[in-house]
Amino acid sequence: MKKIAVLMGSLSDQAVADKALGVLDSYGVPCSVRVCSAHRTPGATASFARSAEGEGFGAIICIAGMAAHLAGAVAANTTLPVVGVPVASGGLGGMDALLATVQMPTGIPVATVAVGGGANAALLCVQMLALSDEELAGKLRAAREKMEQDTLEANRRLQQEYPNSTAG
Amino acid sequence: MKKIAVLMGSLSDQAVADKALGVLDSYGVPCSVRVCSAHRTPGATASFARSAEGEGFGAIICIAGMAAHLAGAVAANTTLPVVGVPVASGGLGGMDALLATVQMPTGIPVATVAVGGGANAALLCVQMLALSDEELAGKLRAAREKMEQDTLEANRRLQQEYPNSTAG
Amino acid sequence: MKKIAVLMGSLSDQAVADKALGVLDSYGVPCSVRVCSAHRTPGATASFARSAEGEGFGAIICIAGMAAHLAGAVAANTTLPVVGVPVASGGLGGMDALLATVQMPTGIPVATVAVGGGANAALLCVQMLALSDEELAGKLRAAREKMEQDTLEANRRLQQEYPNSTAG
Amino acid sequence: MKKIAVLMGSLSDQAVADKALGVLDSYGVPCSVRVCSAHRTPGATASFARSAEGEGFGAIICIAGMAAHLAGAVAANTTLPVVGVPVASGGLGGMDALLATVQMPTGIPVATVAVGGGANAALLCVQMLALSDEELAGKLRAAREKMEQDTLEANRRLQQEYPNSTAG
Amino acid sequence: MKKIAVLMGSLSDQAVADKALGVLDSYGVPCSVRVCSAHRTPGATASFARSAEGEGFGAIICIAGMAAHLAGAVAANTTLPVVGVPVASGGLGGMDALLATVQMPTGIPVATVAVGGGANAALLCVQMLALSDEELAGKLRAAREKMEQDTLEANRRLQQEYPNSTAG
Amino acid sequence: MKKIAVLMGSLSDQAVADKALGVLDSYGVPCSVRVCSAHRTPGATASFARSAEGEGFGAIICIAGMAAHLAGAVAANTTLPVVGVPVASGGLGGMDALLATVQMPTGIPVATVAVGGGANAALLCVQMLALSDEELAGKLRAAREKMEQDTLEANRRLQQEYPNSTAG
Amino acid sequence: MKKIAVLMGSLSDQAVADKALGVLDSYGVPCSVRVCSAHRTPGATASFARSAEGEGFGAIICIAGMAAHLAGAVAANTTLPVVGVPVASGGLGGMDALLATVQMPTGIPVATVAVGGGANAALLCVQMLALSDEELAGKLRAAREKMEQDTLEANRRLQQEYPNSTAG
Amino acid sequence: MKKIAVLMGSLSDQAVADKALGVLDSYGVPCSVRVCSAHRTPGATASFARSAEGEGFGAIICIAGMAAHLAGAVAANTTLPVVGVPVASGGLGGMDALLATVQMPTGIPVATVAVGGGANAALLCVQMLALSDEELAGKLRAAREKMEQDTLEANRRLQQEYPNSTAG
Repeated sequence: MKKIAVLMGSLSDQAVADKALGVLDSYGVPCSVRVCSAHRTPGATASFARSAEGEGFGAIICIAGMAAHLAGAVAANTTLPVVGVPVASGGLGGMDALLATVQMPTGIPVATVAVGGGANAALLCVQMLALSDEELAGKLRAAREKMEQDTLEANRRLQQEYPNSTAG
Repeated sequence: MKKIAVLMGSLSDQAVADKALGVLDSYGVPCSVRVCSAHRTPGATASFARSAEGEGFGAIICIAGMAAHLAGAVAANTTLPVVGVPVASGGLGGMDALLATVQMPTGIPVATVAVGGGANAALLCVQMLALSDEELAGKLRAAREKMEQDTLEANRRLQQEYPNSTAG
Repeated sequence: MKKIAVLMGSLSDQAVADKALGVLDSYGVPCSVRVCSAHRTPGATASFARSAEGEGFGAIICIAGMAAHLAGAVAANTTLPVVGVPVASGGLGGMDALLATVQMPTGIPVATVAVGGGANAALLCVQMLALSDEELAGKLRAAREKMEQDTLEANRRLQQEYPNSTAG
Repeated sequence: MKKIAVLMGSLSDQAVADKALGVLDSYGVPCSVRVCSAHRTPGATASFARSAEGEGFGAIICIAGMAAHLAGAVAANTTLPVVGVPVASGGLGGMDALLATVQMPTGIPVATVAVGGGANAALLCVQMLALSDEELAGKLRAAREKMEQDTLEANRRLQQEYPNSTAG
Repeated sequence: MKKIAVLMGSLSDQAVADKALGVLDSYGVPCSVRVCSAHRTPGATASFARSAEGEGFGAIICIAGMAAHLAGAVAANTTLPVVGVPVASGGLGGMDALLATVQMPTGIPVATVAVGGGANAALLCVQMLALSDEELAGKLRAAREKMEQDTLEANRRLQQEYPNSTAG
Repeated sequence: MKKIAVLMGSLSDQAVADKALGVLDSYGVPCSVRVCSAHRTPGATASFARSAEGEGFGAIICIAGMAAHLAGAVAANTTLPVVGVPVASGGLGGMDALLATVQMPTGIPVATVAVGGGANAALLCVQMLALSDEELAGKLRAAREKMEQDTLEANRRLQQEYPNSTAG
Repeated sequence: MKKIAVLMGSLSDQAVADKALGVLDSYGVPCSVRVCSAHRTPGATASFARSAEGEGFGAIICIAGMAAHLAGAVAANTTLPVVGVPVASGGLGGMDALLATVQMPTGIPVATVAVGGGANAALLCVQMLALSDEELAGKLRAAREKMEQDTLEANRRLQQEYPNSTAG
Repeated sequence: MKKIAVLMGSLSDQAVADKALGVLDSYGVPCSVRVCSAHRTPGATASFARSAEGEGFGAIICIAGMAAHLAGAVAANTTLPVVGVPVASGGLGGMDALLATVQMPTGIPVATVAVGGGANAALLCVQMLALSDEELAGKLRAAREKMEQDTLEANRRLQQEYPNSTAG
């Protein structure tokens, strides 16, 4: 199976990266994590991006805040799918990172997820790999089914908490 | 090869859809276009999403403006990758559609591209299919190379326009 | 009397739901609360919405954050009035949920209240039911009158706190 | 049948009011239109709001731009449901009117629709009246069904425009 | 000397009101404070505004958050200068109150100060009264001079804290 | 009577200034207009502000766009009331000028009006002068009364345009 | 004298680049213009940035819109001062480009100017070069003086246009 | 070597100023810190700016929040490069200070860095001085190299923390 790379712009993004790694691990998808900055290590970042396809990576998750260029810098150096995760920091609530990640010019897409959405970035990568891996696709469908059942069960517990309201 | 679905929330999104279709066509990726509204045809939308994987689709592009729920409504009913394209309309410049598309909850990702980014949505889908299709991957690398050469050539022409400036 | 449904996108929205339930209870309006997600339980959500009118509901309150699609997903499947309550979460302060709730396309309205406005959502439903229930209308007028008196009384107490300022 | 009042803050809002009136007319709902400003005619506005219930109105649509106080000023003087329609004007794209309309304090709800959403404001009022008028409720369901069929038909025509794409 | 009225939309705005009252007190300007809501006590608010000029008030400070209509509602009922103070509450940081206060239509001005700017609202009123009160004007000039000296003194202390930096 | 100064940051703000001058002229208030930039003529701007009170000015209107510092720069050099008018330019719709004008620090207020609100800036100045000029106060009340009658008359004409709707 | 490089992300930014080039030309500062994309020609961009100091450049102006990474990508590869010019495009008014340009992480500064501020970017570069070039410094002072005189002259002409207002 | 001035609008900006001073100190660049307000000490601010070039300063860092005019007020009185640092305060997250600092009119540039970016402001000044100081330029290159090595080392440590993931 192709591997997924999880890049974070700085160590302060580790909590978001852990959400991605947790999801990848639960699907048994091999992955590699690294600190990799569009600004502090531009050469290493471009070099990693250029060699990623050859080294067996299937998609690259880029987690960064502020003028979040990491996803764009990686996408500029590979034709693998790149998933961008904006991180909130400071007073602007992640709006800076969101716009810097998603508003890419024609020709160099970045698949952007919600601010702080590390888990969904990983899920998106699993969905991509599952296009040619029926076992993975089955796991996704099972997990989705379980998520639905969990929510329905949460609803049942909620009904008991609010006995005076009409059962839903 | 798996097909790509291009869904638009209303006929007014057709110009953005055409950008996606043009890219898919240039890569020889089979596709299907339809008007499909999260709000006006919720049943048909959910039904299409639920059957898409079985009908040979590999990814679904959802183009919508305002409270752009189309991508989320489709993603809720499939584990295929869903790509969301926010469309600008009215005075808010597409900020409404961007936030309604990208800020998805954990468990249901939408791969969001720039406001109006129909071409990049298609490219992202081609990148996903190319994970298991080396010919397509080769075309992506060739197109990227060509885009780079085109920009370098544009730069050369620009140098001639500005002869008094030092050649770059 | 018709019932009011209070739907929340996830259990984390319970505090806002409780504000709505408290108001409905104070008016003696029967209600039903449930967790119901546009994304995690799309089938159950659509199914509930389609059957709500037949089951005696008069209006549906939908409480959700981020790309808050719950109100729109419900409104797409019923012609009952749907009231949307955006919830703030993360760094964007609820602007994402507000725009995703209010910017609905022509044909599928959602009556949107303030970010976190669970109590007002419930009041709006009571106002709707009161259109054909003079007793309820009377309670609304009495409560409004009481709210006015409470504020006037708060003003009188304030005057005593600030004895040096001219009595208002 | 109760009447619907359509108030606009100034004559420049007439295009949005006409969208509301067109919808109300199509449902045979009696209505009354007026220019009524929270700022230029505060007395007449409050007076209208206070007497509206007694004069047979069932709901009041308030259309206004900028610091759009009309809906709030009316809601403060009635316990009828008030629907607010923010109007875009100037460079802020209607964000000013949206926030001034929707962010009402606890106790005085305004049911807010999208910027410029005159038609949906009217639909919302029809939905409220339909709670106690089965004929109106039937018309709403029929219109919704027609809207769905129209979109499905638009999809069919679109398939013919794009013959090379796989039929949807 | 004319009096200044300090109105707050709810008791939760008291901290901002206290800043205004402190300034007025320091200038010896008589004032009156009250809770006065555009939405919960619209009649009392309009009534106060209409009688304020006759009762010897010279300007009215209105402090409110969210869809902050208080200043506009007062300005609609008087030709006295009205000063609006937006208050931050919830996740939108006061942007809602700022736009709802400042974006008034032609004919009904509200003199808006910064979010939370209770002290400046009071200063603005003192400046207005000082137009026909040379003693007050003198106090304003003296206070301004003192503020300048205080800042210059703060600068001198700072120089001592940072001895290695060149004296400013 | 004290004079009103109307300052504009550049000649491109002349249309907004004309709205202010028209109002001042209609009230017979003497005024002086000038181009006066916080950035291009800082010395002349500060000098004008420092001497304005002595030269018989009662208030200063400052009209500027982008990083609109004119009002703040003037306010820093006078204790006269300063009224700021933000001007929209470029893509940010005047949000830049609004925040740069209104968010003044404690001690130096600027009375801010709506984006482009030249007429209201002038009205605010007339209201200030009227605090000690009963004739002017009377004109303000008369103008307000006329504005109310004009709106009521506009409403009457509107009723005739929409004969099928119930007379308001 | 060191040269200034003017980089634009695409040919559509040429109008903004021309403003920069016009200013540099008027100061006799040698310059070089090129199209240079952080995303389409990442290698050439990094290569240019890494060699710029050695080739006699003193500063680099980067003009780009949307997720404007050009300035950051260049700054990551040089310790020369980099000046970023955000460009407005699409519905977001340049807010995307502004945040993507200015919100750089510690260690890699970008000197950001206003949206579309090509002329100021060039002036900033001239100011930097003038730190060690007294002739250039003199030209800057002279130009500033001329700008001030031009504004004062514009003011004099304005006084004649408005003869009825008191001469300023 | 020319000195760098670090101005802060108020003592509450001291933490941001300390970040700038720390960087300048680490490069051995002489500097001067002062409290200097565009609004509370306009005369001293303009006076400092006008004499700065003559007193041996090479650039001026201006740190301020809210309607952050300090950088603009200084830039209006010198042709030295001025670096603006917006500071976040209150609920608007620094958006007010950012726009008030960066959106300067043509002719008076301010080199703006990220909200709270004191360290980068200092680095930018060092970069300017390094244009004519090869030793300083060497230090900048060495620091950049060290920063790159530090990030690569952080990455190596991270690999050990995540032993199950493929080594990067």
